[in-house]
Amino acid sequence: MLGTMLENVRKNCPLIHNITNYVTVNDCANIVLACGASPIMADDEGEAAEITAICGGLNINIGTLNHNTISSMFLAGKKANELGHPVLLDPVGAGASKLRTETACKLLDEIKFTCIRGNISEIKTLASVGGTTKGVDADAADKVTEDNLDSVIAFTKKLAEKTGAVIAITGAIDIVADAEKAYIIRNGHPMMSSITGTGCQLSAMTTAFITANPDHTLEAVVAAVCTMGYAGEVAHERLSDKDGNSTYRNCIIDAVYNMTPEALEKGAKYEVR
Amino acid sequence: MLGTMLENVRKNCPLIHNITNYVTVNDCANIVLACGASPIMADDEGEAAEITAICGGLNINIGTLNHNTISSMFLAGKKANELGHPVLLDPVGAGASKLRTETACKLLDEIKFTCIRGNISEIKTLASVGGTTKGVDADAADKVTEDNLDSVIAFTKKLAEKTGAVIAITGAIDIVADAEKAYIIRNGHPMMSSITGTGCQLSAMTTAFITANPDHTLEAVVAAVCTMGYAGEVAHERLSDKDGNSTYRNCIIDAVYNMTPEALEKGAKYEVR
Amino acid sequence: MLGTMLENVRKNCPLIHNITNYVTVNDCANIVLACGASPIMADDEGEAAEITAICGGLNINIGTLNHNTISSMFLAGKKANELGHPVLLDPVGAGASKLRTETACKLLDEIKFTCIRGNISEIKTLASVGGTTKGVDADAADKVTEDNLDSVIAFTKKLAEKTGAVIAITGAIDIVADAEKAYIIRNGHPMMSSITGTGCQLSAMTTAFITANPDHTLEAVVAAVCTMGYAGEVAHERLSDKDGNSTYRNCIIDAVYNMTPEALEKGAKYEVR
Repeated sequence: MLGTMLENVRKNCPLIHNITNYVTVNDCANIVLACGASPIMADDEGEAAEITAICGGLNINIGTLNHNTISSMFLAGKKANELGHPVLLDPVGAGASKLRTETACKLLDEIKFTCIRGNISEIKTLASVGGTTKGVDADAADKVTEDNLDSVIAFTKKLAEKTGAVIAITGAIDIVADAEKAYIIRNGHPMMSSITGTGCQLSAMTTAFITANPDHTLEAVVAAVCTMGYAGEVAHERLSDKDGNSTYRNCIIDAVYNMTPEALEKGAKYEVR
Repeated sequence: MLGTMLENVRKNCPLIHNITNYVTVNDCANIVLACGASPIMADDEGEAAEITAICGGLNINIGTLNHNTISSMFLAGKKANELGHPVLLDPVGAGASKLRTETACKLLDEIKFTCIRGNISEIKTLASVGGTTKGVDADAADKVTEDNLDSVIAFTKKLAEKTGAVIAITGAIDIVADAEKAYIIRNGHPMMSSITGTGCQLSAMTTAFITANPDHTLEAVVAAVCTMGYAGEVAHERLSDKDGNSTYRNCIIDAVYNMTPEALEKGAKYEVR
Repeated sequence: MLGTMLENVRKNCPLIHNITNYVTVNDCANIVLACGASPIMADDEGEAAEITAICGGLNINIGTLNHNTISSMFLAGKKANELGHPVLLDPVGAGASKLRTETACKLLDEIKFTCIRGNISEIKTLASVGGTTKGVDADAADKVTEDNLDSVIAFTKKLAEKTGAVIAITGAIDIVADAEKAYIIRNGHPMMSSITGTGCQLSAMTTAFITANPDHTLEAVVAAVCTMGYAGEVAHERLSDKDGNSTYRNCIIDAVYNMTPEALEKGAKYEVR
């Protein structure tokens, strides 16, 4: 099933509108291309809604948000809702500042999201259950472990029910859930956290997957998360002891580029609860 | 001749002012350095014209334009015209939104460009001959093929005549023309389209070439287009089957860095019509 | 001693707030991660001071400044001063435009900096001793050589005294000084100047070092400068003759990622005057 999700991205080559931060935007564009979709970035009020209209899906990432881009997020999000396009929210750094928390919450209020992807601290902040955030990273206190996994799953399903979105909480263990069903994913490599923007990249790629698979949102998100995590494993195997996080970044995108549906099916490590 | 164009970039090391999008800006800066020139990026109204004045040439790229940067494009463009500096226009996504189409057309009205470089859909949009655009990529319907090549050449020459600029339409087949003479270039590799911003990079590098070769604009643009395309071939030969678009991006810039005038002369594949 | 400085970055993993240009921001984030710290970028007035407050140190880089980000620089800088956080200034392109020169000078007036890092032309501009700037690069006329080294050292110490900041002038020869003591550093490789943003990267990394070593600012800056320069040497040794500036960029960040305190102690080349 996951392989089919990837195949559909390659077959449909959806055009993805990204309103995203300037830190990781180049990697986001290249990973969208690597998985087989096509990116466009546009964040001015004067064109945001119009660009959304010619695209298949919308990725809203609030990293390095500013007052100009915030209004574009709302304009594009509403247009996407109007047209029935899938919309993803990446609440980067929600909890780190009032501006980020309030913007993320207001986006949630006014726009219907198909998927919300963040780290555990960001998602807890959105759910107003007191997550703390260490800048743009999850706080250690919030960490998902085998011990608290069941309660995190219950929390995730409840938030999915409340928002109507598929929720993806990513970290050492990833949880992807709708109101009924949760996938626990154990792909990836710890070194991925020493690259800036693997989360942003995953959000951009996930938007491509849900856009190419409109009738299987939950499975599409799972496929994207497994693709990223498994690419992180494949890429890590290529590293020599002189390589570091910069080469690793390139190798992960390369691994997505070379990912086949068969390899993904074989490499994906998940269980359903 | 093409080798001499590259040699002059390395010899003169022109300073190039880039008002460009934040998606591919880092690659633009690195490829300008790779070819032997020096980049500066500055897009605030408060300094745009002044920065242009200390540079040799100006590259205006409308990707991720916003109301702040648009006014800087006009200020810098007019200053460059006043000083007789070469100016290049890259109308990224013209046709994809009213804002981009109108901005590109207004720039064309108010500023004299030395060179305009885009994909076939963007250039058709500028010429108001009904190009369609798929986001920032050329639309399949507009594709330049051996069958429609003669008519595209005629169109390109006519637009060059109308605008007074050298026109570069790049894609699988590249056409570079002034009113009298067209170069048809067949360098490059299909995989270049899976990297974000090879077009933006080419525009930035082309600005360096036309700035370093003020009396040979047409040949300078041809040299830049051949350098990019041939670098794409050289870089592709280096790829292993585990490498993908991210490593390819690095290898192309590396290949420009290592390009010699002799290699360029040997590798360039073009005909004149 | 230098090794301990690096060790402390890895141990404390300080969170660094960067208000920096969009050209080299991704590399800045990745090198901050490579040295063991954690980056966050935020430049909107609505959150700048608040983000600073949750971080340990602040890096202000004026490349691609605009009227929105300039006010954030002041807000964040003042908050950092209030909280006693270390603040670094990278006056990118000071001297190239009135806006940059005036912004840098006003920042110096209103904010107390812990460290100022730039090329010789930028630092001379700050000191109002008539430096010239070639865009964002040092002007040849200003170049630090063995012949003028003593007078540059005297100038650096004097500026350190005047500003109360550790001054780092980097180039082929690096000078790092407070009012009393100057380190002359001879690490690095000439090819580093063909990568965009090695200076910006160094500034971001230096902020991590001074934040993790609050009682040893001078030595922390020296350690950061030596780390960057020695990483440039280590990375250069890895390059094949087909590699260029893009691969070199990745290898330098990789070398920082793999730098050990022992290797740094052994590789650092400096004298004290």
